[in-house]
Amino acid sequence: MTQTVITGSGLYTPPNSATNEELVAAFNKHVDLYNQKHAAEIEAGDLEALQYSSEAFIEKASGIKSRYFVDASGILDPERMIPNANEGTWVEDKTKMSQMIMAIEASEKAMEEAGLQPEDIDLIVFSSTIMQQHVPSMAITLQSILGTKGFAYDTQMACSSATFGLAQAESFIKSGMAKRALVVTAEYLSPLMNYKDRDSHFIFGDVGVATIVEREDLMKGNKGFRMVSSRLHTELSENITAYWSFVSRLTPEKIDDSYLYFKQEGRKVFKELLPMVIGLIGDHLEENDLAASDLKRMWLHQANINMNLFAAKKLLGRDPSFEEAPTVLEEYGNTGGAGCIIAFDKYHDDFKAGEKGILCSFGAGYSIGSVVVEYIKK
Amino acid sequence: MTQTVITGSGLYTPPNSATNEELVAAFNKHVDLYNQKHAAEIEAGDLEALQYSSEAFIEKASGIKSRYFVDASGILDPERMIPNANEGTWVEDKTKMSQMIMAIEASEKAMEEAGLQPEDIDLIVFSSTIMQQHVPSMAITLQSILGTKGFAYDTQMACSSATFGLAQAESFIKSGMAKRALVVTAEYLSPLMNYKDRDSHFIFGDVGVATIVEREDLMKGNKGFRMVSSRLHTELSENITAYWSFVSRLTPEKIDDSYLYFKQEGRKVFKELLPMVIGLIGDHLEENDLAASDLKRMWLHQANINMNLFAAKKLLGRDPSFEEAPTVLEEYGNTGGAGCIIAFDKYHDDFKAGEKGILCSFGAGYSIGSVVVEYIKK
Repeated sequence: MTQTVITGSGLYTPPNSATNEELVAAFNKHVDLYNQKHAAEIEAGDLEALQYSSEAFIEKASGIKSRYFVDASGILDPERMIPNANEGTWVEDKTKMSQMIMAIEASEKAMEEAGLQPEDIDLIVFSSTIMQQHVPSMAITLQSILGTKGFAYDTQMACSSATFGLAQAESFIKSGMAKRALVVTAEYLSPLMNYKDRDSHFIFGDVGVATIVEREDLMKGNKGFRMVSSRLHTELSENITAYWSFVSRLTPEKIDDSYLYFKQEGRKVFKELLPMVIGLIGDHLEENDLAASDLKRMWLHQANINMNLFAAKKLLGRDPSFEEAPTVLEEYGNTGGAGCIIAFDKYHDDFKAGEKGILCSFGAGYSIGSVVVEYIKK
Repeated sequence: MTQTVITGSGLYTPPNSATNEELVAAFNKHVDLYNQKHAAEIEAGDLEALQYSSEAFIEKASGIKSRYFVDASGILDPERMIPNANEGTWVEDKTKMSQMIMAIEASEKAMEEAGLQPEDIDLIVFSSTIMQQHVPSMAITLQSILGTKGFAYDTQMACSSATFGLAQAESFIKSGMAKRALVVTAEYLSPLMNYKDRDSHFIFGDVGVATIVEREDLMKGNKGFRMVSSRLHTELSENITAYWSFVSRLTPEKIDDSYLYFKQEGRKVFKELLPMVIGLIGDHLEENDLAASDLKRMWLHQANINMNLFAAKKLLGRDPSFEEAPTVLEEYGNTGGAGCIIAFDKYHDDFKAGEKGILCSFGAGYSIGSVVVEYIKK
């Protein structure tokens, strides 16, 4: 059967960021304002006082020290606590649209690494948690901006957006409907968050990543990561939710309802999802006659440091080195479907022909995407 | 290579509808209210008076006589002119969610026709213009409700949602990652419309459709439509738009801005898109050594009667019979990505082994999806 190869990747990092210190300062000021405003009810025992967040709590719970945002000013404003609209929110020139800016730069870098021109590409899979524009789609708009050929479509898979996008590209190439694909995961997550929620206000950052998948016999360059085997799995959980959708138009009075935005039962996720992930990766490796120790690297989903280390340790049977399971959490935070590709983008230049690795996403849905790759050089 | 077969389809029709007469009555009352309210400005020449709609205009422009809605009461309320929220808008029991109700019934009918149980299915492609829930996804939620296996994901392609979904299912089966897929297009479009716009208030209806795609050698039944060849194409146009997205949260003051909701430059679409469609279908048939006259049926996108007849006539070189290019526009209106599957669902029982047809979508994006099928019986 046709082989497919990942021949390029690209990363876009937004220009704004927030450290734990900055985020905690804004959050705690919000807590003060809230508690002052509701002092009487709190005093009377009718309302619970909000509790401070802290840098120590955040770092212990997540390993995250900072994250990037399309807009940090609104998030860091204790009177607002959601991103401000900016010149990329509603804009006629689509190259200036916030999520598109991420997609364009990541795509251009990925094409450059693969040695491709836009017209070499005949498929764009724009695979992200959520889209800034629906009609026309993000994918077709990007196709027009870059000048790629063929077809382009949007798809969504939350934390597994990139791996599911890779598997879709692989499938379209194997079915003969495409030859070279650009897979884009532009995670513009900040407008979906609840920055007033102590348990989750620190988790996510915005980021864009892209990869190129080519039919191996048509590769323009001479090296890449052959997609040896891909496996996808989903199983419903309501422990990670963001219910907000277009029906919000029908109920504008609910626009600030915390029910609609990101919520997570972190402990349940840890307890339920990790065994599934470890089981699935273990099975997937076994099917390919591999052990975790045969892998040079695991580019794992970047959810939080404890999950990442737990998963890598269980699979290896010992503590992983940074080279075996690199993390980007400290700097980027959890970036939804993009996390494993940031790790891949930053840490893949040291591979030699025949060395293997695994890209693995896991999270909301639940969803798990696992892609075993082997470095090839012609 | 592995062959894939469409072995079932299903249709869900919402319980509420609106005739042209009802829609025009509400629209014209809205016009009266607006013109009365702004009488002074209109009189002074500072504002243009709104114009009435009419049943004759609608029928001539579109061929549509009625359409179905999740909620008609809000649309037919001249003081509101958008759907009302109802018990399916925000609901904990996901089987009662408006878009999910459509998906469940259509899916069950499709599985029944294919003779499948939910556990036979290992892939759900939930392919619709827009989703009522993002995290967890519509697809994974449906997977859990039905009890299907494997994986499930959401994808969006406006007017070509169903054909792009079919091609994705086909590709995943051909790549070996799935064996039997359920492709769901639940078009809950009414909350994205601008019912105050005379040029478009009558176009769309809500509806749900589903199809089953199986690997031919694993078919449980003994008949179906083999997917002979699929072709997808996209090319950017801003002549059909619905810009509304999750960044709306950042600008709640814009919630009623007509810029955000469905708009169409109908004449430009007719002029630009139809030649692309006719060219693409013509090429696609030629590649498969077929002429339009070799097809028993063309299940075309249901946009409006003039586009449908124009396309069918150009391809055949003569006027099509209803059997050759059936329309469902009169009753259902334009149903976005679901249209060609409604036509397929209603008109496919008379096929004999070896007879061929084409499923073709075209519209927003622009996007075109073309699937040549051949009826097989074992």
